[in-house]
Amino acid sequence: MTGETGFVENAAALLARVRQQRPRVHCLMNTVVQKFVADGLAALGAIPSMTSSTEEVEAFAQRADALVVNLGTLDEGRRAAIRLATAVARSAHKPWIVDPVHCDYSPSRLAFARELIASGPSVLRGNASEMDIIGEANGVLKIKTGAVDELTLDRHTTRIENGHPFMAQVTGTGCLSGALIAAFMAVERDRLRAATGALLASGIAAEIAAQRSSGPGTFEAAFRDALAALRPEDIIANARISYAEG
Amino acid sequence: MTGETGFVENAAALLARVRQQRPRVHCLMNTVVQKFVADGLAALGAIPSMTSSTEEVEAFAQRADALVVNLGTLDEGRRAAIRLATAVARSAHKPWIVDPVHCDYSPSRLAFARELIASGPSVLRGNASEMDIIGEANGVLKIKTGAVDELTLDRHTTRIENGHPFMAQVTGTGCLSGALIAAFMAVERDRLRAATGALLASGIAAEIAAQRSSGPGTFEAAFRDALAALRPEDIIANARISYAEG
Amino acid sequence: MTGETGFVENAAALLARVRQQRPRVHCLMNTVVQKFVADGLAALGAIPSMTSSTEEVEAFAQRADALVVNLGTLDEGRRAAIRLATAVARSAHKPWIVDPVHCDYSPSRLAFARELIASGPSVLRGNASEMDIIGEANGVLKIKTGAVDELTLDRHTTRIENGHPFMAQVTGTGCLSGALIAAFMAVERDRLRAATGALLASGIAAEIAAQRSSGPGTFEAAFRDALAALRPEDIIANARISYAEG
Repeated sequence: MTGETGFVENAAALLARVRQQRPRVHCLMNTVVQKFVADGLAALGAIPSMTSSTEEVEAFAQRADALVVNLGTLDEGRRAAIRLATAVARSAHKPWIVDPVHCDYSPSRLAFARELIASGPSVLRGNASEMDIIGEANGVLKIKTGAVDELTLDRHTTRIENGHPFMAQVTGTGCLSGALIAAFMAVERDRLRAATGALLASGIAAEIAAQRSSGPGTFEAAFRDALAALRPEDIIANARISYAEG
Repeated sequence: MTGETGFVENAAALLARVRQQRPRVHCLMNTVVQKFVADGLAALGAIPSMTSSTEEVEAFAQRADALVVNLGTLDEGRRAAIRLATAVARSAHKPWIVDPVHCDYSPSRLAFARELIASGPSVLRGNASEMDIIGEANGVLKIKTGAVDELTLDRHTTRIENGHPFMAQVTGTGCLSGALIAAFMAVERDRLRAATGALLASGIAAEIAAQRSSGPGTFEAAFRDALAALRPEDIIANARISYAEG
Repeated sequence: MTGETGFVENAAALLARVRQQRPRVHCLMNTVVQKFVADGLAALGAIPSMTSSTEEVEAFAQRADALVVNLGTLDEGRRAAIRLATAVARSAHKPWIVDPVHCDYSPSRLAFARELIASGPSVLRGNASEMDIIGEANGVLKIKTGAVDELTLDRHTTRIENGHPFMAQVTGTGCLSGALIAAFMAVERDRLRAATGALLASGIAAEIAAQRSSGPGTFEAAFRDALAALRPEDIIANARISYAEG
């Protein structure tokens, strides 16, 4: 239990650190949820950027403190941009996360997801179908999000139970989780602590927002308000986390 | 009147069927309203996908139960993707709908709309300017949406009067209508019954939402809440529909 | 003071004129905020369009009454479309505005911004970092937006103090300002009067909206409601503007 308590307190401290340091997060983000993700990052206190132009993405990645690579609406140009941006991240030792959206729908997307994972991201985050089809990802923190989020590194698994069913009705909450994890990694190089902080912040903000919502539309606005208003003590008071070795 | 009553009861039953079957709707959707349409489909209970990459769109179309082809922000790549996706829909006998956004603005878009219509979609939906410039569309259910929606097949016309003026102030409500019709066609192969169900659901949800709104911004969130909360009995109690032969 | 009073009354009259004339504004707009900008223009009473396809953009620009050129998510195709659209605007003497988003991040984007400015837009609008790096822009109305908006033409500077800190937490409020200025220029060829009207309308709507908001999410919806409901007398009652020569 000591370890768990430490994690929650650390997560609360990281929220304060994100708000203070205002990290830049460059997002290779599917076209569907770009504004939703940018607004979520801004609500947290981070500074988003979004270009996926091959001629500009290296300049943006160089200025960023962390990178999120989301594979939604993937095409040839976006794939080239991702290769350029992740090369910058690797050579400058910036943290980066892969979100293999719908890789279970498309063989070419799955192949590209595997290529990226082999090149050494800090974190891989997906839903159950996506994570199951990807399988092994050595050396990467694997996060399966859903009603319960499972974070697995080597043989350790952390489970986070915060969140609300409305999240599943809002397009992009998973994509935003990936971006928030990148923001937390920008201020905390222990990726498990960073991801735990991001998922606790997101899940607890969702629980607060759900109390003020009458459906997914009002929830989306309230969730953003709650992310902007979230305090470290909200994390300490509401975290539901467990930890297992196996 | 018997026919009309049957249509309304059928529409109510279809709403329940969409929520239960959760059809997949692949959207070739303009870049402006992708999230709005995805969220509207999710609120209804359907499962949206959005890629317009030529290398992936066939895999997504094959998994989908229906297709919506929206011609907003059209370009060469999107046109190629539409040809691939509609070929899948035709060969697998999946229902699909064409939404010829702004085809009255651009000769090349109008020509492409006509090419698509000739290839045999189930439904064509547009506003008055778009439908008037397109003219004939043999064998296709033609839907002109506006303050009153007119659905014309052969010599029969159905008119639906539900809806609210706020809809015209929210970018994408017409595009969403097309996507909702696709979702209803996925669970009901009689396209006139399916489209009637979708437009009644949308129009009645808008009326409910308008009562809780103080402008187009709060209306957009309330509309999504109302779509998610809409019950079959709301359709039966509120439908305003008429039917004419001519 | 007479001049200032005249500006405020003129701004109020322009709001009424936009609502009555419903100008068409074609937007070369980054992919992140397309719907947000379209909805803001619609709330004001203008009619937005958004395509950046090279084969269609000239047809759309020809039908438009004003053009906004936003450099976010810039790439080769978008640059070609911007060249085509601005050529139409110049030859037809339509007002157009350049918004050099993040030109301080990317040398190629800065070079393109300078090329556009040299080709004679009516207005250039950016934040402090963007405007500072661009430097001189002869013959162009330069607008630096922020907590205070500064409009500089030749040696005259107008300062507008309306607005609210929530605006900085909503992705796209700057981009929307550019689009609103285009809408006002479509009904008033004196660009300084037009831009003053647009920025007063936007800033005062934000102040009204902030009173009904509990964070950036609810603010975004309330801001759109307030733009739609804004009356000329709201501008007269709330404008905070000053004028300096130097």
